[in-house]
Amino acid sequence: MVNFDFIENKRLKKQIEFTVEIDKMKQILRRNLIADGSKREDDAAHSWHLAVMAMILEEYSAEKIDVGRVIKIALVHDLVEVYAGDTFAYDSKGYEDKEQRERDAAAKLFGMLEPEQGAQIRSLWDEFEAGETAEAKYANAIDRIQPLLLNYLTNGHTWKTGGVTSAQVYKRMDIIRTATPELWSIVEGVISDSIKKGILKP
Amino acid sequence: MVNFDFIENKRLKKQIEFTVEIDKMKQILRRNLIADGSKREDDAAHSWHLAVMAMILEEYSAEKIDVGRVIKIALVHDLVEVYAGDTFAYDSKGYEDKEQRERDAAAKLFGMLEPEQGAQIRSLWDEFEAGETAEAKYANAIDRIQPLLLNYLTNGHTWKTGGVTSAQVYKRMDIIRTATPELWSIVEGVISDSIKKGILKP
Repeated sequence: MVNFDFIENKRLKKQIEFTVEIDKMKQILRRNLIADGSKREDDAAHSWHLAVMAMILEEYSAEKIDVGRVIKIALVHDLVEVYAGDTFAYDSKGYEDKEQRERDAAAKLFGMLEPEQGAQIRSLWDEFEAGETAEAKYANAIDRIQPLLLNYLTNGHTWKTGGVTSAQVYKRMDIIRTATPELWSIVEGVISDSIKKGILKP
Repeated sequence: MVNFDFIENKRLKKQIEFTVEIDKMKQILRRNLIADGSKREDDAAHSWHLAVMAMILEEYSAEKIDVGRVIKIALVHDLVEVYAGDTFAYDSKGYEDKEQRERDAAAKLFGMLEPEQGAQIRSLWDEFEAGETAEAKYANAIDRIQPLLLNYLTNGHTWKTGGVTSAQVYKRMDIIRTATPELWSIVEGVISDSIKKGILKP
């Protein structure tokens, strides 16, 4: 049995236990596959990809942003799924209790840290969920484009298994129109080519 | 066949192609397992974990750091492995040509972006490799602690398969002594308990 009782600094011990706990992100599987279709993407890899994309595509944010905060948001935006699990984007039933499940998970997970540090991390997650700041809007837009690209590259894998229509995808991508308008052409290009290829229902 | 020819903005097209290329990080497997021992860790998940740890443990850096830059460094520090593969930390043979393999990989990968953006990302990787700035030292220290914890949690998996001794681990962890001295107790605690448990050679 492994424990970290040899760490005398209580605050540090909590930080290390938190570090170990969030390792579970590597086991939370999303519905979509990675780009080559070889396996489902996990939450840790998704969060990494999102953070790098946020870094690379900064210039397309409609509003001025602190990209450093966006990256932090990207790194923690799915942490609550360690307990709450991944809710499929097009699963309206799963969305009914998503908020409560995730709030409970947040309390438990961020509560592992000292209150002030837990609150700091939680505020990044809250900011993403509220979607009101320029940083949160941009992070949400990139969080839509990332799986759009992966679905496109894997023959519409998630769309097919979920029976998703182009109207549903357009609706889900809507934030991109305002948060990163220059990226909207990607949404249109991907959707129209996917319909043409028969991997997305018109 | 998927291509992004419908993206008229050439700079954006390159950025999207780069985004897709680095998805390969999700397939580059490291020697160590994830915390529950269920699978090998991939580079994307490792980079994510490292970035979050850098964020959480900032206060332990001996020198004042710009944690935002550390996080960016963590996100890109292993990108070259998309072409160069992962070199096992205790593989002295693999280390012989590691530098050349990685330099070639960097030229190819960062060359996918417009020169100025490619140079920007590359400079973060160069900074990590050189290990001279306060940010690079801190990032390197955390990059040592992360697999140390995972090896400890998985019964010394990497140590056993590689026939690694405690002296080798101490040597590899040395940067922690100066970059994050308060974290050195973790190294000592993990190593002494691992020897006691017989999962690491004395």
